Amino acid sequence: MMSPMTHPLLTKHRDTLDAAVSAITTRGYHSVYPESPSPRIYGENAAADGKAEFEGLLGKQFDLDTPDVVDYVATESSPFGIELGVHYPRADAEALLTAARRAWPTWRDADPDTRAAVCVEILERIHRHVFTLANAVHATTGQAFVMAFQAGGPHALDRGLEAVAYGYAEQRRTPATAYWEKPAKGEPLAMNKRYHVVPRGVALVIGCNTFPTWNSYPGLFASLVTGNPVIVKPHPQAVLPLALTVRYAREVLVEAGFDADLVGLAAEDPSDRIAATLALDPRVRIVDFTGSTEFGDWLEANARQARVYTEKAGVNTIVVDSTDDFKGMCRNIAFTLSLYSGQMCTTSQAIFIPEGGIDTPDGHVSADDVVAGIAGAVAKLTGDAERAVEIIGAIVSPQVADRIDAAAETGEVVLASKRLEHPAYPGARVRTPLLVRLPADARDVYGTECFGPVSFLVTTADTRESLRLVTEVVAERGALTMGVYSTDEDVLTAAEEVAREVAVHLSCNLTGGVFVNQSAAFSDFHGSGGNPAANASLTDPAYVSGRFTIVQSRRHA
Amino acid sequence: MMSPMTHPLLTKHRDTLDAAVSAITTRGYHSVYPESPSPRIYGENAAADGKAEFEGLLGKQFDLDTPDVVDYVATESSPFGIELGVHYPRADAEALLTAARRAWPTWRDADPDTRAAVCVEILERIHRHVFTLANAVHATTGQAFVMAFQAGGPHALDRGLEAVAYGYAEQRRTPATAYWEKPAKGEPLAMNKRYHVVPRGVALVIGCNTFPTWNSYPGLFASLVTGNPVIVKPHPQAVLPLALTVRYAREVLVEAGFDADLVGLAAEDPSDRIAATLALDPRVRIVDFTGSTEFGDWLEANARQARVYTEKAGVNTIVVDSTDDFKGMCRNIAFTLSLYSGQMCTTSQAIFIPEGGIDTPDGHVSADDVVAGIAGAVAKLTGDAERAVEIIGAIVSPQVADRIDAAAETGEVVLASKRLEHPAYPGARVRTPLLVRLPADARDVYGTECFGPVSFLVTTADTRESLRLVTEVVAERGALTMGVYSTDEDVLTAAEEVAREVAVHLSCNLTGGVFVNQSAAFSDFHGSGGNPAANASLTDPAYVSGRFTIVQSRRHA
Repeated sequence: MMSPMTHPLLTKHRDTLDAAVSAITTRGYHSVYPESPSPRIYGENAAADGKAEFEGLLGKQFDLDTPDVVDYVATESSPFGIELGVHYPRADAEALLTAARRAWPTWRDADPDTRAAVCVEILERIHRHVFTLANAVHATTGQAFVMAFQAGGPHALDRGLEAVAYGYAEQRRTPATAYWEKPAKGEPLAMNKRYHVVPRGVALVIGCNTFPTWNSYPGLFASLVTGNPVIVKPHPQAVLPLALTVRYAREVLVEAGFDADLVGLAAEDPSDRIAATLALDPRVRIVDFTGSTEFGDWLEANARQARVYTEKAGVNTIVVDSTDDFKGMCRNIAFTLSLYSGQMCTTSQAIFIPEGGIDTPDGHVSADDVVAGIAGAVAKLTGDAERAVEIIGAIVSPQVADRIDAAAETGEVVLASKRLEHPAYPGARVRTPLLVRLPADARDVYGTECFGPVSFLVTTADTRESLRLVTEVVAERGALTMGVYSTDEDVLTAAEEVAREVAVHLSCNLTGGVFVNQSAAFSDFHGSGGNPAANASLTDPAYVSGRFTIVQSRRHA
Repeated sequence: MMSPMTHPLLTKHRDTLDAAVSAITTRGYHSVYPESPSPRIYGENAAADGKAEFEGLLGKQFDLDTPDVVDYVATESSPFGIELGVHYPRADAEALLTAARRAWPTWRDADPDTRAAVCVEILERIHRHVFTLANAVHATTGQAFVMAFQAGGPHALDRGLEAVAYGYAEQRRTPATAYWEKPAKGEPLAMNKRYHVVPRGVALVIGCNTFPTWNSYPGLFASLVTGNPVIVKPHPQAVLPLALTVRYAREVLVEAGFDADLVGLAAEDPSDRIAATLALDPRVRIVDFTGSTEFGDWLEANARQARVYTEKAGVNTIVVDSTDDFKGMCRNIAFTLSLYSGQMCTTSQAIFIPEGGIDTPDGHVSADDVVAGIAGAVAKLTGDAERAVEIIGAIVSPQVADRIDAAAETGEVVLASKRLEHPAYPGARVRTPLLVRLPADARDVYGTECFGPVSFLVTTADTRESLRLVTEVVAERGALTMGVYSTDEDVLTAAEEVAREVAVHLSCNLTGGVFVNQSAAFSDFHGSGGNPAANASLTDPAYVSGRFTIVQSRRHA
């Protein structure tokens, strides 16, 4: 039974919230936002409407209804060559912080249920504009459209809801009140106690270029649901997806009776370095960051007044030992290496193959043939430009494109990277994946993250050496994913031991429609927080529990 | 129904564990270890046996059955002048770390239930020797015997059990396995998933001189139950309570089928600075510390490879606004200021009184009379040496004694500190509390922790100013406790607002047998982690969730 004070949004979203909280305790399949952009699900006009809304934003000032805007910045250039020209209000750190602090009290003092319901409404509002968002993600990141829709829309929204569920559940672990009665001689000692959820303060979310929404929503919603105002600092090359997100969030907050400035946008000229300024401000008490190891380490070392959650670089690996489906293995690996040109933080970079070859149902396959199998599967997947671009998308930046050429010099090229002409975008920066074969002792090459469509096929003495190299590389450099292919249960067990040792999530014998570089919200964890690739996992209890404190009061009953 | 693999200790302690987990969700009264040292509870011979066991340790080598001991250190000198002369194996950091890592795998791979049961057995084993422990705490800290028994024994054990309950519950928040099935065209995608609790690594617990067990048990048991080996580094002046703890823990671990070196003792000569050496070692992944702000801040800044949980200095305050029981208020405050000579991290240091005086049931009382009332109550409580020493105990170190004399120069002395002769210990360092009256603008004096039997009575313009000063001082310096006395609900509400603002736990109108400086395990939180006095709370979910990570694996179903 609900109290008369129940916020209308709580009534509206109670079931969604309860189902999400249930999902994080069982971690089975759960999804709220349909991943298929099909008109049968979203309606006949949804795609066209979203595209029109997106195009209506281009070349104009992006209005956020923020006060005192003195300047605008336009910093994005699309990997597809799409003319963007969106001008965002240039952020002033002091103004953003002041506004966030001013907006805070009513949100801080709202109950966790209300905050959770408002967060779900924000997710729903974003979802209502999911095709607009998908176009923005597509244009700024270089992801093919369907991927931009899925990863940037429903999958990001599911991850956001997962963070809402964890943050909401976490706040309810301590009761709001307690009655304490201690047996004593004479009259018992009795106290009434209250426990307040006290949010930490202004939260900063620093987004990345490749997954502006997917990587930002967990931190954004984890901080917001636990009562903190949030400043969203997008990557200067991928502002629009987060600017839209901030706009929808502000709309919902105002409609729900809160202050729009609880969610602010820190758009900048890259020379502003506003992320560093904000991160060191004493009012900023939480920082979520996705990006380079260099800046992530800097934040951890310097933003000492804040809880800092980072996802940085790493070296993801696959150990090939044997398989009961050689073609399926090659196809599966090829898709992982090709999807979004390997520009996922979860893409496998080093694939270890024993020099003696591997056992398959069709007999023994030599190491050369394993290499050829994988290279052939990638070549097949990316051979036809029209089909290829729907998988590989475009290269996010000129720096990544340059890196491909440099990587080709590091070893034996078993599949060269090609420039493809994009059928829809003549100026697009499109490259197929590069595969380089290396010996086990070239660890300085394959053991350092080479972000982009570059993967190394590493020949080892045997699977034991493969596992040892994985252990060493991941302990030193970190990783978000690890794959293993083996028909030998002892090898799978040994791989699982390695995964636990270096705290990396393991996928075994993927030959079908699940890929090592993809994780499902509510079921798969992204990162463990236990190796150098990330100091936190998206999303687990540890990711949310530090975003607020409990403050108690007590008095005689 | 239990599986055949259930550890016998789990069967034995299932009910204790379940009750503790239930208690942390309701946070009502819960205690497992009786706080009264009465022979009716502990048996006629328990006190004498414990004293004999304690005395049997004095002047001898303390044997821990640790390998390769090359040297012993005896560093303790009792505030009561008790001759201790216990010689502890001098720790070698490398040997301790190697042993801890070697001992780790079976403990790491045990299930959370088994680990929790073994932890409860350790607590029970310590409890079996509680009088021995009480004598050790009494002798090393200067706490009067009954307090040493209660705070050092049952209350510390309850806090340890609370940490076990939180750590145990936290590990169970993610299921061990999940079945994931995604609807898809054709056959559904189905995966079996496993989620492993992966403990972080070697944990270091750095104890303090005043509460060697109470302040160390939460970190010790939180790390142990979550699967980490623990190295206990006692304060060189209070080694024995933790050496006994380590001994009992090792006994139980071996009996339960694990390695003794899962809990090690880092006894040192103070010049060894082994805490710093251990804290920076890459194998140390968790640090719990109670002590100075200087070393706590150093750990937070430098032990970057570890999760660091600190409790440091702070300025605890009481705001006196009005009361419905003037004598009760004065008695209650006097007890707080006197207990263990104010050497608790929770003792109130600054008491704010409005210059216009306060309302009481017996009419208006001037500020001078409030000061006189509190000073008189302290004088009464500490006037008779024989009774006084059972409350105030002894001064933990010569430095604290010196500080009393220095503090007497800072303002108007309204109650002088006296040296008392201890009836049982002629050489004991006993001083009664010093009360100094200060104006509101002497913030540099009352606004900095002056550890020991020194409290400041601060005259303010009004309660509004008192609350403002509390806000400023606590925001800057931190605090673990705050008290308020008022008959005005608006003032209590304003005080609660302040408490939330600076994240300090509040006690309202304590006039009976509950004191602002005492907290009850399972119900009261110690510290919030939201102000400079501590970066964590003992014990809440955030205190335990970072001590392990979750690592998953998945394969096709």
